[in-house]
Amino acid sequence: MSDTTPASTPSTVQRLTAEVIGTFILVFAVIGAVFFASADTGLLGVAFALGLSVVVGAYAFGPISGGHFNPAVTLGLAVAGRFAWRDTLGYIAAQIVGGILASLALLGILSAGPVFDLAAFTKASTGYDELSPGGFGIGSFFIVEIVATAVFLFVILGVTSAGRSASNFAPLAIGLTLTVLLLVAGNVSNGSFNPARSIATAVFGGEIALTQLWASIVAPIVGAMLAGVIYKAVFDRPAKLTA
Amino acid sequence: MSDTTPASTPSTVQRLTAEVIGTFILVFAVIGAVFFASADTGLLGVAFALGLSVVVGAYAFGPISGGHFNPAVTLGLAVAGRFAWRDTLGYIAAQIVGGILASLALLGILSAGPVFDLAAFTKASTGYDELSPGGFGIGSFFIVEIVATAVFLFVILGVTSAGRSASNFAPLAIGLTLTVLLLVAGNVSNGSFNPARSIATAVFGGEIALTQLWASIVAPIVGAMLAGVIYKAVFDRPAKLTA
Amino acid sequence: MSDTTPASTPSTVQRLTAEVIGTFILVFAVIGAVFFASADTGLLGVAFALGLSVVVGAYAFGPISGGHFNPAVTLGLAVAGRFAWRDTLGYIAAQIVGGILASLALLGILSAGPVFDLAAFTKASTGYDELSPGGFGIGSFFIVEIVATAVFLFVILGVTSAGRSASNFAPLAIGLTLTVLLLVAGNVSNGSFNPARSIATAVFGGEIALTQLWASIVAPIVGAMLAGVIYKAVFDRPAKLTA
Amino acid sequence: MSDTTPASTPSTVQRLTAEVIGTFILVFAVIGAVFFASADTGLLGVAFALGLSVVVGAYAFGPISGGHFNPAVTLGLAVAGRFAWRDTLGYIAAQIVGGILASLALLGILSAGPVFDLAAFTKASTGYDELSPGGFGIGSFFIVEIVATAVFLFVILGVTSAGRSASNFAPLAIGLTLTVLLLVAGNVSNGSFNPARSIATAVFGGEIALTQLWASIVAPIVGAMLAGVIYKAVFDRPAKLTA
Repeated sequence: MSDTTPASTPSTVQRLTAEVIGTFILVFAVIGAVFFASADTGLLGVAFALGLSVVVGAYAFGPISGGHFNPAVTLGLAVAGRFAWRDTLGYIAAQIVGGILASLALLGILSAGPVFDLAAFTKASTGYDELSPGGFGIGSFFIVEIVATAVFLFVILGVTSAGRSASNFAPLAIGLTLTVLLLVAGNVSNGSFNPARSIATAVFGGEIALTQLWASIVAPIVGAMLAGVIYKAVFDRPAKLTA
Repeated sequence: MSDTTPASTPSTVQRLTAEVIGTFILVFAVIGAVFFASADTGLLGVAFALGLSVVVGAYAFGPISGGHFNPAVTLGLAVAGRFAWRDTLGYIAAQIVGGILASLALLGILSAGPVFDLAAFTKASTGYDELSPGGFGIGSFFIVEIVATAVFLFVILGVTSAGRSASNFAPLAIGLTLTVLLLVAGNVSNGSFNPARSIATAVFGGEIALTQLWASIVAPIVGAMLAGVIYKAVFDRPAKLTA
Repeated sequence: MSDTTPASTPSTVQRLTAEVIGTFILVFAVIGAVFFASADTGLLGVAFALGLSVVVGAYAFGPISGGHFNPAVTLGLAVAGRFAWRDTLGYIAAQIVGGILASLALLGILSAGPVFDLAAFTKASTGYDELSPGGFGIGSFFIVEIVATAVFLFVILGVTSAGRSASNFAPLAIGLTLTVLLLVAGNVSNGSFNPARSIATAVFGGEIALTQLWASIVAPIVGAMLAGVIYKAVFDRPAKLTA
Repeated sequence: MSDTTPASTPSTVQRLTAEVIGTFILVFAVIGAVFFASADTGLLGVAFALGLSVVVGAYAFGPISGGHFNPAVTLGLAVAGRFAWRDTLGYIAAQIVGGILASLALLGILSAGPVFDLAAFTKASTGYDELSPGGFGIGSFFIVEIVATAVFLFVILGVTSAGRSASNFAPLAIGLTLTVLLLVAGNVSNGSFNPARSIATAVFGGEIALTQLWASIVAPIVGAMLAGVIYKAVFDRPAKLTA
């Protein structure tokens, strides 16, 4: 492999490992903050844990894998023509694995804690009605998750456009977008924007979390793909015409 | 259009769409945080939602439209000779549209929530007396909004001066200025600095919000234009003399 | 003046105006946050208001004046051989003027508020015993102010060293240092590190504030000069030997 | 020494002094925030004090010493082949000295305060059972400290990889990682990730702190070395093969 792959082109193993570690960091940070900090820091602490974990993960592993850490991002980029469709399945699998590994680490921490109750995972699961911290219904859930994930993809597609002189700021802008969006969506949907993050808590979250999981998979992907289609149609069109 | 517009020069449609999306993100973030997070995070959460939404919106869409997202910014830059007067009306219209679209999205989220009351928009409206969170009068309102928007424009004009080696930091500095200013003005005027943001909440905010709306249009524009005139006179003068 | 001063070399008027505006922004932010936000956000909001105001002020006006906004910084840089002694008096005067102008703006906002009481300035004044939020004495005051301002100058001198590839990050690092230091010193000394900031509140803070003002002038300057001497002796020596 | 050491190559004295000052800033910030701010700001204030102190320390002194400020970082980098083993002892000694000097400064501030009680150091010490703010046991302690320090090293190793165009963002990413990790680990282990920080509080923290100190030395070093081995095996391998 060293013959055909120069040091500057990451191998498939390296790219998938980067997605595993990056998604691990994201879920370890945001769910860890929900478990162990939010009683003290409130939503602001969780919002910074989420946003800054993606900032640092994307600076560290973005140059290797692109730093998706999120199936909705992978699919939104594919729709926008920025990512190869043939690589999507591997990326999504790696992201789900990374998220579940983080849940297992948090489970280990919980298990030697003063109270060990899987209800922590249920409370951290994304959803509507019983799973919405503010008691919002499925309509609110779909609007906030679709709009927020679309905003997320618009920012990603904008800051990673070719020829941007500020492209080194892309990880900063992308991560901080999640901080902003969680402040809006946190009390509505618990803030998914990311099926891998929702799967990671649902697997230990019991029946209610698993029953509602479909919504946290569908809504972010719909929002991401919508943004991908719109961004490509409006902003990437002229560049294509000159090709 | 592809003949006369190279890929690196955004079209009018692209520029106005960028202003619509950027202002959408700003209003969705700050009013969304007021609606759904502020009971938990307080003013600090709203201040970061506002500031960081402009940071990320400006990194994503600034290279396309300049990233104004605010009629006072557009007019202040025009006064300072940094933006073409003939483009101001289109920009301002796009900003107002983007803000109202965000209010509609938030209205949709509210409508499937546990309590649906337009009073949320009234409470999020900018103004004095009844609309001032701290009960400040119109005198306090005008001082804080004029001074804060002037400070905002001074920062914008400074960080976007020609020949700055740190110009890639401009979106970061511009957005974080709003975080700072909302910490000062939030409990006084509810923090406008931006007629498009104030219009977006006033349209659903009822009589009191609409009655006071003029002040949130006049004060930021006065502050922005004042800064534009002063900055041009003091800091841009020598450059002009050498032309 | 346009003959001898090219556009890229700021004039004395421009440099002093930049120091006035920058110090205005700093004091407007930090004292405004103390007055109008701290009951809600606590010390964290004030710490970010202070730090981020210097971040954005330094990005906007640093290229013009160096972005001191603080007599202790001006003197510390002079001691370290980074700033001309003959310019120190003008800079310090401009900083004091900028700070007092900000206090006047805040006074105007207070005057049309629900309660108008100069005690707000006393409470925001820096000092020990009665003026220490946590009831710390003069010994604690001098240690925390000297150490914190020395740390501040070490960071400034480090990030503005010649030949640093990350020099565009200097304003970010410098401002965020103040956020960190206010978290440590806020409840001890009320967090000066800056005689201009302390003068700005003391002038309206009544007898106790004026009586203790000397300490907020002496301690930061001692800390800054100490750091200037040490940094120059340890880190700038080899560079000098090669000249 | 000036003959063999050009100005751009720091001397051993300069490098060790940089580690002393950087670790001083880190411990002064995080333990100072615990002592004087946390009753007001909660864990979020402490997390930002820690993270931002490393951001600014690394911008200021990173170009001189590499900006480790942490024995686990020094050893993790050595294992990954990024730091010379022969320099590790000096660095670790300097870090321990810097941390203890910061504790002495904080002790001085405390000593002139309203209440002088070394229990503040005990409460700020890292550990399990009695020393865990949330009452977590030694199993939780080891999992969270090993995983968190491993995540920290993964980020450091990623952002400092050769040929990264965003390498100027390394200090920002590295410091903010600590903010994220403290939000997760703060209530579990009190958040060490750094033997020098734990030693600095343990020396004044009494018997319980000294008794548990071994765990705060072992766990971060294990996590750091684990990450160093894995990162080198997975991500640095191809580059080696081409050599």
